[in-house]
Amino acid sequence: MINGDAVMDKVFIEKLNEVAKRVNEFLDNRVAMQDNLQKVIYEAMRYSLLAGGKRIRPVLAIKSAEILGVSEKDVMPFACAIEMIHTYSLIHDDLPAMDNDDYRRGRLSCHKKFDEATAILAGDALLTMAFEVAAEGAERVENKSGGIMAIKDIAYCAGTEGMIGGQVVDLDAETRKISEEELRYLCRRKTGALLRVPVMVATDVAGKAKTKEAEYLLEYADTVGLAFQIKDDILDVEGDIAVLGKPIGSDAQEGKTTFVTLFGIEESKKILDELTQKALIACDNLEKLCDTQIQKDACGFFKELARFLLERNY
Amino acid sequence: MINGDAVMDKVFIEKLNEVAKRVNEFLDNRVAMQDNLQKVIYEAMRYSLLAGGKRIRPVLAIKSAEILGVSEKDVMPFACAIEMIHTYSLIHDDLPAMDNDDYRRGRLSCHKKFDEATAILAGDALLTMAFEVAAEGAERVENKSGGIMAIKDIAYCAGTEGMIGGQVVDLDAETRKISEEELRYLCRRKTGALLRVPVMVATDVAGKAKTKEAEYLLEYADTVGLAFQIKDDILDVEGDIAVLGKPIGSDAQEGKTTFVTLFGIEESKKILDELTQKALIACDNLEKLCDTQIQKDACGFFKELARFLLERNY
Repeated sequence: MINGDAVMDKVFIEKLNEVAKRVNEFLDNRVAMQDNLQKVIYEAMRYSLLAGGKRIRPVLAIKSAEILGVSEKDVMPFACAIEMIHTYSLIHDDLPAMDNDDYRRGRLSCHKKFDEATAILAGDALLTMAFEVAAEGAERVENKSGGIMAIKDIAYCAGTEGMIGGQVVDLDAETRKISEEELRYLCRRKTGALLRVPVMVATDVAGKAKTKEAEYLLEYADTVGLAFQIKDDILDVEGDIAVLGKPIGSDAQEGKTTFVTLFGIEESKKILDELTQKALIACDNLEKLCDTQIQKDACGFFKELARFLLERNY
Repeated sequence: MINGDAVMDKVFIEKLNEVAKRVNEFLDNRVAMQDNLQKVIYEAMRYSLLAGGKRIRPVLAIKSAEILGVSEKDVMPFACAIEMIHTYSLIHDDLPAMDNDDYRRGRLSCHKKFDEATAILAGDALLTMAFEVAAEGAERVENKSGGIMAIKDIAYCAGTEGMIGGQVVDLDAETRKISEEELRYLCRRKTGALLRVPVMVATDVAGKAKTKEAEYLLEYADTVGLAFQIKDDILDVEGDIAVLGKPIGSDAQEGKTTFVTLFGIEESKKILDELTQKALIACDNLEKLCDTQIQKDACGFFKELARFLLERNY
């Protein structure tokens, strides 16, 4: 959940937190504590899952659903499955064999709070349960084929051609300088895929995967996804450790290729601005296709979200 | 795939290998090599997935499907999804933070052949792709609800109340002596769940989850599943390292509670025999419900499989 910030529109933050709250409630209920011999796994899963992320991914799914006429109840399991996958990826990324990070969101990372074996298994368990939750989602929607397509899209975007593929390229990129083309390839997968798939599950369930609405929504998600990564790169240089909850300057220290190392900070900010403009135009185009006020409000929300992600300092 | 053994019925081994061959072909095609920036992940996945396991789990699914009147094509994606999950669990189990095994099936384990980060990601990728493959299975079957139920059952049995839960209890059990009740709890989850779910996916797709056939098939799978674990415990004491492809005596060395440490080797063999008898009775009961020769042959196959698992030396 997000605290107010002088720069940001307080009303928007409230709107965002309202949706995030319902996401948190769903996750808290669905990944409930169990009092059995393996209860430590539930503790570890809940420790990382309920650590207060921004919930951007589920929010993207829920607001896309609003635009496409899908109820929040119908999209929620898919939205939360994606958040569970996002969380598992953070747990595994933090492991000593990977990025070896002791802190995450200002708290001990999962393997430091528990131990390495528990963290590996908690990640595996969140990934596995994500698909159980997604299957429950497919079970309840009327459009079963759309529900199945949503499960498939989640697996694809989280897998070797999506997020995991991006992580593999990222590990390789730590050992050498990569080109702009390779960096874009990496971002499209490592962070892009899991920001794109929330829109996909909404269009799948709506049965509108190939429509004009889907096209604009995907354009929005892709643009915002890349902007998100560039903003992260900038924050790694200019951010405030107290606000970010993680050390800054780690990219440069590790000799990592980022948008900032490739283009410098000013040019990176220019690219970020252009991407945000592009995202806003996608919202405008989308709004023209909307009939109801609820749909138009969701488009407005997406515009504010793009600006929020641009201006955020954490 | 399995080599002939003087003790075993050669004809049965051939029948088993014939099904395993089709499983291997499906896996080889579906998890094909990709020539892209992240190709090392495909190499690692294929290294572990195509290392020549017995393919007991997919065979269980395919033969259950025969009895239930489901085509092999319809059950194959689910069968192979389960095998992919089995493989990922071996990769993660072998990691230094877990069992720290350098060898698996007579070859270097995944993290020794590649590195730890790649092994973690290859496991994650197999788990993720398993659900993509299962969703493809749900997409192609006519009974979409059954397909979705199969995905849900796979996730449940692989998760915190199934395989992962069992692994958590197993890690805990290494640090203390556990009771027979706890050992059975552990086995039912760690190895049992993934031997039970092949039957479940077949009954789900057939739309026969609550029938008498399903009941007998599940009884067979559960009994064979426990027998499988007890046989493993016995082989850890009496096995031949050259045939097993892994060191023996490791359970005792680690002070692990097993059926052998709890009951001794002779009593364990007696329990194993009784379980096998129980599995054979389930097959007899099942056979009485079968009409066609194909179904009856599949029941005969299950009987031979139970004997094979009893007598195996690896």
